[in-house]
Amino acid sequence: MSNCRPYVLGIDMGGTNTVIGIVDTLGKVATTTAIKTRDYVEFEDFVDALVKACRRVMNDVGGEHLVAGIGIGAPNANYYSGNIENAANLPWKGVLPLGEMLNRALELPVAVTNDANAAAIGEMTYGAARGMRDFIMITLGTGVGSGIVVNGQLVYGSDGFAGELGHTCAVRGGRKCGCGKSGCLETYCSATGVARTAVEMLTTRDDASLLRQIDTAEITSKDVFEAALKGDALAKEIFDFTGRIMGQAFADFVAFSAPEAIVLFGGLAQAGELLLEPIREAMEANMLPYWKGKVKLIPSALKSSESAVLGAAALGWKAV
Amino acid sequence: MSNCRPYVLGIDMGGTNTVIGIVDTLGKVATTTAIKTRDYVEFEDFVDALVKACRRVMNDVGGEHLVAGIGIGAPNANYYSGNIENAANLPWKGVLPLGEMLNRALELPVAVTNDANAAAIGEMTYGAARGMRDFIMITLGTGVGSGIVVNGQLVYGSDGFAGELGHTCAVRGGRKCGCGKSGCLETYCSATGVARTAVEMLTTRDDASLLRQIDTAEITSKDVFEAALKGDALAKEIFDFTGRIMGQAFADFVAFSAPEAIVLFGGLAQAGELLLEPIREAMEANMLPYWKGKVKLIPSALKSSESAVLGAAALGWKAV
Repeated sequence: MSNCRPYVLGIDMGGTNTVIGIVDTLGKVATTTAIKTRDYVEFEDFVDALVKACRRVMNDVGGEHLVAGIGIGAPNANYYSGNIENAANLPWKGVLPLGEMLNRALELPVAVTNDANAAAIGEMTYGAARGMRDFIMITLGTGVGSGIVVNGQLVYGSDGFAGELGHTCAVRGGRKCGCGKSGCLETYCSATGVARTAVEMLTTRDDASLLRQIDTAEITSKDVFEAALKGDALAKEIFDFTGRIMGQAFADFVAFSAPEAIVLFGGLAQAGELLLEPIREAMEANMLPYWKGKVKLIPSALKSSESAVLGAAALGWKAV
Repeated sequence: MSNCRPYVLGIDMGGTNTVIGIVDTLGKVATTTAIKTRDYVEFEDFVDALVKACRRVMNDVGGEHLVAGIGIGAPNANYYSGNIENAANLPWKGVLPLGEMLNRALELPVAVTNDANAAAIGEMTYGAARGMRDFIMITLGTGVGSGIVVNGQLVYGSDGFAGELGHTCAVRGGRKCGCGKSGCLETYCSATGVARTAVEMLTTRDDASLLRQIDTAEITSKDVFEAALKGDALAKEIFDFTGRIMGQAFADFVAFSAPEAIVLFGGLAQAGELLLEPIREAMEANMLPYWKGKVKLIPSALKSSESAVLGAAALGWKAV
């Protein structure tokens, strides 16, 4: 039966918006809609609205009987249980049985995983990692997320929470992280981490920089990127510093799973060679001899507006 | 046919000795023999001697027709190719097609992997990790090796060399490692690393210690262990230091693959709570909240004299 259903639902649930897309077998997004995640005081009301939105997009393509399954990428979502567990970025606390509730309401197979894992599955199915059996996806956003693929399968670990590379230690005793630890990779290499580096450099030094025109409380990684594009030396140094820390960490990730490639996704990844060059240099300097020059470092091949929905959709196909 | 063959050959090839064992389906070692790895100038002569030794043990249990396959754990061995590639600890350089040569000579299926991976497979099949689908094996010997199991499968990576956790960076810019890098985990946490720590502490400080009775050039991790057992404060401090570095590293390994357990194997692992306690403390302090108290830290359950052969034998069953 499911073989004759040409669509899946891909749901990208974020702290602000939840985007619902219908995706065909070739990875074409047929139609999307969205709801505001924070408009609902009770989780049950959010799910009701989500179910309605799903029905709406399914009708847009001809009805529910054409949809094979549902994939969801959501913060702190557990693949094994289908639950969202204690997500800091969502308004509802505790354990939220999202997979079970959607499955009951829509009577379709549902698979749930976190955003970075969904991105990895999307990249493997439709993007830069097509055909790869071993790669690591790093998502650079407000935080640093990761999805690890080993032998063609996503690594979920014993509890469903594997792949928290943003919280490996980049600098022993370094910056305080939101997770309670110190020196986590994401305190240096997320968009927020880059802004933090900018403020640190601007306040402890006095060399000229275009960034000095901006209130330090307001500086974003985008400002740093734009200044670097204009040739600003300090902005370039911020990217060098960020890339070096990332490359050192990546070298250790390679020692773990010997991936064919590390794929970078997210706003920061769009900085291109400004970031890729220092990453590559530090990676090469810190890898064992037989990996030197062999591990690819590549930006995501998916449109950023579509990738989360595509990733969730690819997961949906697996649920079928 | 292979189903009625009750034995496999397990070969543990080391830099000094190569041990050949016959193991039954229940993991009982029926008989073993050994040859000196370094007695042969040409690799071909070593393989000839190995083949003869294999025939000898097979005859001991009733003949070649009772043996289903061969598993080999060897330094720098590549599971995908069956080759040993540029092993620093062996007398022969370059690429050695061990798997293919044994297969041709004995007409049995052959599987080859490195020592730490073989240990992980042995532990999963016969030891402390029975029934586990996600765990990390750490071997503490002259170096630090690792075998990573994800979803019930050994992680080989894109090139067969995954699981080099001994060469992840424990201390940025730290001790020089034989691999050419600095600060590798194995420069601190191998038996050699422990001896290095002892020498460092003894030469930079002047507090009393039983270890001062030994020539610093001769100190081994066993001396440190024995001094610690006698209550020597400096020796205990060496274990605390070693365990702390290991625990910090393990916390990052957990963030990668969320294992159910980390299994420790090798001479140093026999130090028991002297080492396990500081490891556990540092692990707990450096893991994300949801892993705290959940990841087991356990010593190998295999006899050290048998474990490498058992691991190779377990791999041999997989080759069948």
